[in-house]
Amino acid sequence: MSRREEALSMHLQHKGKLGTYSKVSVKNTEDLSLAYSPGVAEPCREIYKNPKTIYDYTMKGNTIAVVSDGSAVLGLGNIGTHAGLPVMEGKSVLFKEFAGVDAFPICVDSQNVEDIIQTVKMIEPNFGGVNLEDISAPRCFEIEERLKKELDIPVFHDDQHGTAIVTVAGLINSLRLVNKKFEEIKVVVNGAGAAGIAVTKLLQHFGVADIIVCDSKGAIYKGRNKGMNPIKEKIAESTNHAGEKGNLKEVLVDTDVFIGVSIKDILTGEMVKTMAKDPIIFALANPDPEILPEKAKEAGARVICTGRSDYPNQVNNVLAFPGLFKGALKVRAKEINEDMKIAATQAIAELVSEEELSDDYVIPNPFDTRVVEAVSQAVSDQALASSTIKL
Amino acid sequence: MSRREEALSMHLQHKGKLGTYSKVSVKNTEDLSLAYSPGVAEPCREIYKNPKTIYDYTMKGNTIAVVSDGSAVLGLGNIGTHAGLPVMEGKSVLFKEFAGVDAFPICVDSQNVEDIIQTVKMIEPNFGGVNLEDISAPRCFEIEERLKKELDIPVFHDDQHGTAIVTVAGLINSLRLVNKKFEEIKVVVNGAGAAGIAVTKLLQHFGVADIIVCDSKGAIYKGRNKGMNPIKEKIAESTNHAGEKGNLKEVLVDTDVFIGVSIKDILTGEMVKTMAKDPIIFALANPDPEILPEKAKEAGARVICTGRSDYPNQVNNVLAFPGLFKGALKVRAKEINEDMKIAATQAIAELVSEEELSDDYVIPNPFDTRVVEAVSQAVSDQALASSTIKL
Repeated sequence: MSRREEALSMHLQHKGKLGTYSKVSVKNTEDLSLAYSPGVAEPCREIYKNPKTIYDYTMKGNTIAVVSDGSAVLGLGNIGTHAGLPVMEGKSVLFKEFAGVDAFPICVDSQNVEDIIQTVKMIEPNFGGVNLEDISAPRCFEIEERLKKELDIPVFHDDQHGTAIVTVAGLINSLRLVNKKFEEIKVVVNGAGAAGIAVTKLLQHFGVADIIVCDSKGAIYKGRNKGMNPIKEKIAESTNHAGEKGNLKEVLVDTDVFIGVSIKDILTGEMVKTMAKDPIIFALANPDPEILPEKAKEAGARVICTGRSDYPNQVNNVLAFPGLFKGALKVRAKEINEDMKIAATQAIAELVSEEELSDDYVIPNPFDTRVVEAVSQAVSDQALASSTIKL
Repeated sequence: MSRREEALSMHLQHKGKLGTYSKVSVKNTEDLSLAYSPGVAEPCREIYKNPKTIYDYTMKGNTIAVVSDGSAVLGLGNIGTHAGLPVMEGKSVLFKEFAGVDAFPICVDSQNVEDIIQTVKMIEPNFGGVNLEDISAPRCFEIEERLKKELDIPVFHDDQHGTAIVTVAGLINSLRLVNKKFEEIKVVVNGAGAAGIAVTKLLQHFGVADIIVCDSKGAIYKGRNKGMNPIKEKIAESTNHAGEKGNLKEVLVDTDVFIGVSIKDILTGEMVKTMAKDPIIFALANPDPEILPEKAKEAGARVICTGRSDYPNQVNNVLAFPGLFKGALKVRAKEINEDMKIAATQAIAELVSEEELSDDYVIPNPFDTRVVEAVSQAVSDQALASSTIKL
């Protein structure tokens, strides 16, 4: 059976991947009278009297909505909300299997920003948090920002922040290897979509001053006219201080770190050779990276991270989002703020010990069972420290 | 421990009653590459090419939304959407435990009719059907009608039709006992809310011509001025042909069947004594019926049905909704139409054999495991017969 057939057959077998189950027994009249009428009236009354007890008596506090409009699904693009459902089901499965967090797909049948915001606000009672997924840029930025403002449960766009957290965790360890500091390095981020913008912002939180963000038209700089949008205008304010105007090849010269969240084969060996000593490459386009690891190595790259499981150093968001939400839910955090993301990033990086650290091991394995607990603990500690607790 | 404490403790123990689970294994890289990236792209592509395959590759075809706005929760009234969540979770649990149908609560954070309709339409991609629950009358009628028209998945307001189906099933068997026919009997329905209106309509489908619907102001008749709404206006057109204007006590004289979906203790023994021979009483107010069975019996009632599990002949919607949706989902019905409701009603009634039939056994037990299969089969057969199949 080909990989394609195997994937289809797995999905056919059970008609999808996610189900619901009862945590209580309803085998007889007595059970029924507790789980349903008349007994169920008691928790209803409690929540009516004291709204915060919804976290004690219902599923809300351990349940996440995985929200998408299908506008930017995997590498498939805008395939629509129905066709995106297998991904949202899969994401929900990962929440459960990696962190014990219940999750449910909410594929919104509109790609209008207001419709999406309104729908998520309307279904808030059922959920302790919202994971936005596969929503195209720049719409995703407005949707996330508005929902963060208008809801008092955590809202997190994984394509932005999950990728940023795992990437920067890998970079922390890469820099340990090559003895460079965040403050000193020059970084080129290729891609100004959801992930590129979020990676850039998180790098800035970690003290990186010298970043150039490129899109398909080359370096983004203040005052550029072509292909801009409000998000790029804003990122131009805080990056590329020298106002470099070249294409990727030109601005990459003497750069310490390349972070690609763009398209396959855009980075050549020749370009890697022009980078500073010990080039660090994140080639995260999926499934085909900006440069294949063997080619990058050949050209002198020191550390290469990709999104692929068949190479070392996989940047896999599953290292971040399960533990992040688990930690946020545990303490009923109102949001996932910058400090909580930084705490998660550091927790992931720290799981690679000094002895284990090598060019081929700067990021923990996605199935390293220590990860979810470490991230969850760091995130809930930080939530408590930043007093962003709901109740 | 009191019943109250027991119910609260059950809900506290697991923080609610419903969870999600994965139907597939994600224990290693290989699993992950099938259930998630890159393998998950295959079912996405299939659904994109051929939208109906969403029923093959995803959870949609076996998943129901349990939708409420918390405006009429149990006997508690308008306690709001958050406080209603334990009921919607409980209902979801019943779908799963009684029929293997996955269900998820959607408590909509608005009591505006348009908001509710819009939200349900927006989340349609995830669901094969919609069970409306605990939405107050007359808003529930508009919401159901609009959603039935605007969605091509089954939409079913259980407080209306579930109650009607089980009640009329019990009445079929009661009439067998007393040798009366639907066409001959006079029925008083006390209560013009969701359940009262639906019971009346289903009785009419079964051929009952002589029905008087009462509300708190007495008999509803054409041209009544006080306390009317468009739904009552409409029901007045097809009932109470003689235009009787009295209160419940007055119109009940010589009636064969009393169906109460109203409030406790409104029916007295004196009133039962004025009914026709072999009075049949459905006293469905919950938890306290319109008349207690022992009092009704004492006054000469032949058959008494209530909503309670501690008396015989319990009218419990769980006899209907799990099998109804199971049957509708099995054949991908576009709707649950009148014929499918009638088929469900007859299927439930037929489970009481001639030998078993007695004054104290006109309705099967809620835990009779034959019920769900019988209802499901009857409903899917009828859906096929009425060609209301989606794909």
